[in-house]
Amino acid sequence: MRAYQDIKMNNISIMKRVLRLAGKASGMTSPNPMVGAVLVKNGKIIAEDYHRKPGAPHAEALVIDKTGEKAKGATLYVNLEPCCHTDKRTPPCTKAIIKAGIKKVVIGMKDPNPKVSGKGIAELRGAGINVVSGILEEDSIKLNEIYAKYIMTKRPFVILKVAMTLDGKIATPEGESKWITGEKARELVHKTRGRVDAVMTAIGTVKADDPQLTARIKKGTRDEGQGTRSPIRIVIDPEFEIPIDAKILNTPPETIVVIKRSQKSVSIGDPSALGRTRRGEPRREVRSQKLEALLNKNIKIIEYDGERVDMKWLMKKLGEMGIASVLIEGGSSLNSHALEYGIVDKVMFFIAPKIIGGKESFPSVGGKAVRKLSEAHQLKNITLKRIGDDILLEGYIK
Amino acid sequence: MRAYQDIKMNNISIMKRVLRLAGKASGMTSPNPMVGAVLVKNGKIIAEDYHRKPGAPHAEALVIDKTGEKAKGATLYVNLEPCCHTDKRTPPCTKAIIKAGIKKVVIGMKDPNPKVSGKGIAELRGAGINVVSGILEEDSIKLNEIYAKYIMTKRPFVILKVAMTLDGKIATPEGESKWITGEKARELVHKTRGRVDAVMTAIGTVKADDPQLTARIKKGTRDEGQGTRSPIRIVIDPEFEIPIDAKILNTPPETIVVIKRSQKSVSIGDPSALGRTRRGEPRREVRSQKLEALLNKNIKIIEYDGERVDMKWLMKKLGEMGIASVLIEGGSSLNSHALEYGIVDKVMFFIAPKIIGGKESFPSVGGKAVRKLSEAHQLKNITLKRIGDDILLEGYIK
Repeated sequence: MRAYQDIKMNNISIMKRVLRLAGKASGMTSPNPMVGAVLVKNGKIIAEDYHRKPGAPHAEALVIDKTGEKAKGATLYVNLEPCCHTDKRTPPCTKAIIKAGIKKVVIGMKDPNPKVSGKGIAELRGAGINVVSGILEEDSIKLNEIYAKYIMTKRPFVILKVAMTLDGKIATPEGESKWITGEKARELVHKTRGRVDAVMTAIGTVKADDPQLTARIKKGTRDEGQGTRSPIRIVIDPEFEIPIDAKILNTPPETIVVIKRSQKSVSIGDPSALGRTRRGEPRREVRSQKLEALLNKNIKIIEYDGERVDMKWLMKKLGEMGIASVLIEGGSSLNSHALEYGIVDKVMFFIAPKIIGGKESFPSVGGKAVRKLSEAHQLKNITLKRIGDDILLEGYIK
Repeated sequence: MRAYQDIKMNNISIMKRVLRLAGKASGMTSPNPMVGAVLVKNGKIIAEDYHRKPGAPHAEALVIDKTGEKAKGATLYVNLEPCCHTDKRTPPCTKAIIKAGIKKVVIGMKDPNPKVSGKGIAELRGAGINVVSGILEEDSIKLNEIYAKYIMTKRPFVILKVAMTLDGKIATPEGESKWITGEKARELVHKTRGRVDAVMTAIGTVKADDPQLTARIKKGTRDEGQGTRSPIRIVIDPEFEIPIDAKILNTPPETIVVIKRSQKSVSIGDPSALGRTRRGEPRREVRSQKLEALLNKNIKIIEYDGERVDMKWLMKKLGEMGIASVLIEGGSSLNSHALEYGIVDKVMFFIAPKIIGGKESFPSVGGKAVRKLSEAHQLKNITLKRIGDDILLEGYIK
């Protein structure tokens, strides 16, 4: 019994190391998972490494390559089931593991990818390798929650971020929102941006705050291995009102503007078809000039039909573009719009210890209310953290 | 050094016991403080007790009486500085301590009562007694926060309680609010009601929910020594709309209705002076009939001048009536009204892990917003607790 406990504890402490290694590439591996690997022989770690980015070698391949002949008889620790399929740039890890003569494989979680999902384990066992799975499974699943959602659904994992006062307000009636939360909370938001493929906002926020929504990470606060990559920015802008000099259009890497398809796009040659702007310019002309200017800036446009964008449709489209994760940083309306369409997977509510009150202040989630309390969006797996003077509540939509 | 550490640890563990004893009378001692006392001699506890209710003996007197001659040379532990004044029903404890021959007194906190505040300690030291003060001071202050506010200002200590969704809503647009939080949170609210002198609400809540606002504490969930007393209920009802059969008027112990003084109260004999109700009855008559009915029920009326009740004025009035603590359980408007007037000392926000959204939902704090974020009501000494599925955030207004 004692010996069994020791082995179990040992598995856990090594798997923790594996997860830390994997997390070093946070934000850099999308749409691939983060994977770390540790090779142990005679109670000693003989190699450890992690997957760095799409196209680069898998963690398992790295440690096997490093050790060569020594890998024979060793135990491999890896947070995700080794791959067994060939439709990618790198060879299947199962084959390499078997070939290297590894005698035991300890796994954090099964690969949710339907092409693997247990087949990797079966192949290893078929080759006589002792496989233990489910060590620190919850932590493993959490680390690769983005990957799991995307590989299974081809839709991005969506995080709704809110920075609000204790009474649930994100701005005063005049729209003042800078800064509700403190510096530490804002730093964490920048880090989170560095971990997702895209950040989404709405035209209201662009007009009010003119944000960049890039991942600006202060020196010395970056985690080891933390990505420096800024996310793609997505702006929901039905009436195509975005100013051509908005910061979000003029900072790398790339911005996608989601606009309503012009209803009169068939009536060619009539410059007044869309009416006139407040300055008296024909709307159609402004629209096409703007489109041209944006295309010159290498900015993507997504046009949708109907009055409001169907968020499920949009997520499908973004998924097809290879976007595996979206962080929503919008206002009252976008937040409610996203929840209404059921696209949100996770919420991050930063709560500042202050109260501003006001019936006319902007609520964290606006739009239409659910009709009944029993129909509220329920959260599960709540965690609470103090971030400087603020509180971060994270949870998952049930 | 080691010996000093031991003594310090011993002081702390005995003071914890003192605080536990004191807390047994939670809700029963108002406007007096909760006080516990432990008498130690030769490293052994020879007596312990606590103050039970106004007029009953003080904790110090109880342990001295119990031990008689044995108290000589003992050390007394007490969470509050012993009293030294005589304008009350019980004799000053300092005299009793000196007379009993106690050689050392360990105190949690100085008595904030200006009539004592250090004078008790000085008197003991003057008699050659060794006095140590400030052991578990923070806990001692927190235990008697109501007493401290009231004894120093003659105004009640005000707790603002909110039960809201994560997005800061207390009801759907249709007013549905039952139940946003879970059973455990509601149990804690009932316990809190049992610890305060009064619960305040507004006519809107009475009309929407017809609450009793009594302290209904489920069998088996009551703390040892927990009071069974229900609080006085206070309803802010400017237009005197409260239905005569409202539950809050018909459950003990007592209800105070705060109404706007009739502007035309001088024009005697004119039954139409206040116009007519929707049913066509003369308002004056309805008002006086209602007043009479309430007075028969032994319900108190407080009339105020002006359009809105001045909450500072009201708190002064309640303080004069001997009410040392008020728990506000109102809606969006009352919550903001109380914060605007600066009468709130502490907040208890119960946050349910759900989101209902809605621009038209009722916000936790309504009314007028602060004009600028920099003028927000700031909170300090935040604590977080999980209460069943909900979260309780407590803090103090800076």
